[in-house]
Amino acid sequence: MSAARIVICGAGFGGLTAARAFGERLSRLRPAGEILLIDKENYHLFQPLLYQVATAGLSGPDIAIPIRAILRRFPQITIHMDRVVGFDLEKRKVLLEGSSVGYDYLVLSLGAVTSYFGRTTWGEYAAGLKSLSDAHRIRGQLLLAFEEAECTGDPSRQEELLTVVIIGGGPTGVELAGAIAELTRHVLRRDFRQIDPTKARILLIEAGPRLLAQFPERLGRIAECRLKALGVDVRLSSRVQDLGKRSVTLASETIRSANILWTAGIVPHPLTASLPAPRDPSGRLLVLPDLSLPGHPNVFAIGDMVSLPGVPAIAPAAMQMGRHVAGLVTAELSSGVIPPEKRRAFRYRDKGMMATIGRATAVVWIGKAAFNGPAAWLAWLAIHLVFLIGFRNKVIVLFQWTWSYLTYGLGARIILRSEDVASPTRRNPSASSSADG
Amino acid sequence: MSAARIVICGAGFGGLTAARAFGERLSRLRPAGEILLIDKENYHLFQPLLYQVATAGLSGPDIAIPIRAILRRFPQITIHMDRVVGFDLEKRKVLLEGSSVGYDYLVLSLGAVTSYFGRTTWGEYAAGLKSLSDAHRIRGQLLLAFEEAECTGDPSRQEELLTVVIIGGGPTGVELAGAIAELTRHVLRRDFRQIDPTKARILLIEAGPRLLAQFPERLGRIAECRLKALGVDVRLSSRVQDLGKRSVTLASETIRSANILWTAGIVPHPLTASLPAPRDPSGRLLVLPDLSLPGHPNVFAIGDMVSLPGVPAIAPAAMQMGRHVAGLVTAELSSGVIPPEKRRAFRYRDKGMMATIGRATAVVWIGKAAFNGPAAWLAWLAIHLVFLIGFRNKVIVLFQWTWSYLTYGLGARIILRSEDVASPTRRNPSASSSADG
Repeated sequence: MSAARIVICGAGFGGLTAARAFGERLSRLRPAGEILLIDKENYHLFQPLLYQVATAGLSGPDIAIPIRAILRRFPQITIHMDRVVGFDLEKRKVLLEGSSVGYDYLVLSLGAVTSYFGRTTWGEYAAGLKSLSDAHRIRGQLLLAFEEAECTGDPSRQEELLTVVIIGGGPTGVELAGAIAELTRHVLRRDFRQIDPTKARILLIEAGPRLLAQFPERLGRIAECRLKALGVDVRLSSRVQDLGKRSVTLASETIRSANILWTAGIVPHPLTASLPAPRDPSGRLLVLPDLSLPGHPNVFAIGDMVSLPGVPAIAPAAMQMGRHVAGLVTAELSSGVIPPEKRRAFRYRDKGMMATIGRATAVVWIGKAAFNGPAAWLAWLAIHLVFLIGFRNKVIVLFQWTWSYLTYGLGARIILRSEDVASPTRRNPSASSSADG
Repeated sequence: MSAARIVICGAGFGGLTAARAFGERLSRLRPAGEILLIDKENYHLFQPLLYQVATAGLSGPDIAIPIRAILRRFPQITIHMDRVVGFDLEKRKVLLEGSSVGYDYLVLSLGAVTSYFGRTTWGEYAAGLKSLSDAHRIRGQLLLAFEEAECTGDPSRQEELLTVVIIGGGPTGVELAGAIAELTRHVLRRDFRQIDPTKARILLIEAGPRLLAQFPERLGRIAECRLKALGVDVRLSSRVQDLGKRSVTLASETIRSANILWTAGIVPHPLTASLPAPRDPSGRLLVLPDLSLPGHPNVFAIGDMVSLPGVPAIAPAAMQMGRHVAGLVTAELSSGVIPPEKRRAFRYRDKGMMATIGRATAVVWIGKAAFNGPAAWLAWLAIHLVFLIGFRNKVIVLFQWTWSYLTYGLGARIILRSEDVASPTRRNPSASSSADG
């Protein structure tokens, strides 16, 4: 038997964990399989801290770790920075821009993107928070709004600039609201002469009856209470009717705001729809218990693109799925093909959920224990540091947190413009040297 | 006498030092003057370390410090993030996009931009290194070239991608060449499977007969020798005839390269030409000995936009000029107007020059002492840390340097695309709320 080729699409939590697990197991097999990991970026993004990049607490590189550096020690892993454009499951091929690669096993880990409930223009008015690009957009918008408010003499314009509306009261919305409240209340407090940043209005809009719907009710109430203490105007059971350029329309009123942030929903990666597999109403794949696609025992899907009862769309679930698939495939490679129905089913081990609300406050829900306050906050800090990849990144993030805590200062308060990243546009590799004229 | 209004344009080394010096002195005057500092960015950029952002050693925010945070303790300083578009020296006004501000004293500190010797298309082919945007462009291009070389099967395309040409053998060119050599020789060494980054070709092209023309000849020779030891192909007395998309034409040959960097010249900020003042052939302002503009005793120019015999275009000179002007103006405000010819002339105190070449190597020239090697390198590190603004930034940069030194790793190896900074385009403040429809 020749070396099997395993292709992993996406280097998020699921794909990266699968790659590492394959790397560790396959080196012990003879013949060793070879692994190809494809991602459109050259880095793995630690999404749980993305809101801190958006609110100027961390720099992009603090939470974006080069994939090659992470997987350097596995010689059987090859990495291609490329964009997946489709799949041909019959021919066992992944289609890339201008080329394709064949596979024996395919692991799909493409993640999710922000969903505006099909309202195509809303993305223009309200920034989501799923990528480094999103975080830079939010950071730039927020800081620029304060700069403009300082310069303009028009009070109604100032009010619009100093109003922040966050739509969606899940963990990301709660964390953003808390971080923005602290940014305006503490960090920017003494920086301006014409405006008072502490007077900035921060609204958190949630369609449901409480915050953190996935958490126990008590924790949602605590988050609400803590955010209110920070000066956030929390609006529950409040559905957004319409979004415009700098306006949010609710049933009762229209709010003018230059800073509209959207954390109200995600959908699986658009390519999910191109797969010949059943999907749930939100578009997520309905996989078999072993995580393979029905009718395609050599194709697995993991992470946020998958719908499994009782499994939340969070990093630990994606990582567990990645390890599960690596285990199944390695077992097949050493002892022969196993039909999907005889394979071990994926079982989610609930490690809990947590969200931070602000300085020394967080809510944590682990198994039967639900707690909050400084202990929860320290648990949040510790767990995020442990899971952040790279010793260097851990040290820098820990230092920045300590610094911010002690000084009420934030380090990454710079406005990058779009032209600050002057288009290292991807030159099409397939165009080769002939395109150069 | 009412409070005098001092307007400073530009928050580089000169403008920022002037603002601080004014802030410290004016608080002791009655009536205190008021200072307005205008910059198009919200951060002060520590340009001497910009090459380390371009070569993935540091993140942008490590060397870009919010101006408001630096000047927070001076209540008499107001900061406007705005773009200067012209001057009306007769009416004593600075023209901004959509508005203007009056001044009693004006300090011009607009700095310099990359000069391509009037070859307008060259900027497209060869990235300069003066702004954070430039640094991100270079970092993205370099890292992307290795990613593409790994994916392409075409050997001639691979060669082009793995060739880096740096044009200009001054301190920036030397520092870039050294840092890129270490990036390819050490950091990326084990990261790829199809290509060998240590085989990357790095050329440093200099039109003059030696490197570091402003330094003593011996140091230029040492830099050349050290760069050659790192594998850099140093070409002296080699003038660029033409640049094209991915090609550099010298008298003897044309080199194909996907990474062309330009550090061969700077010119003063374009607005310099709009001032009613004499200029030297390179466009820099010929100011009076007190740094005021001839015929405009209340207008001063400092830093890289000024031509003064024996004063190099480096940060310490700009800072000394900023302090000089703050001293003159404060003296006038407390004891009455002094005609330019009776004012104290600016005298440059030569604090030396330095350039780092790579791991534990630098050249330093202080007064009569010219030295190199590890001692020079430590001096370089210490001085850059001392002058980098902000304790937080010092700690982070020191940690990253220590880390890189010990592990041969670099932290900021991420490719930002232009769409990663999704256009927080400056909304024109003058457009006000009426523009929102």
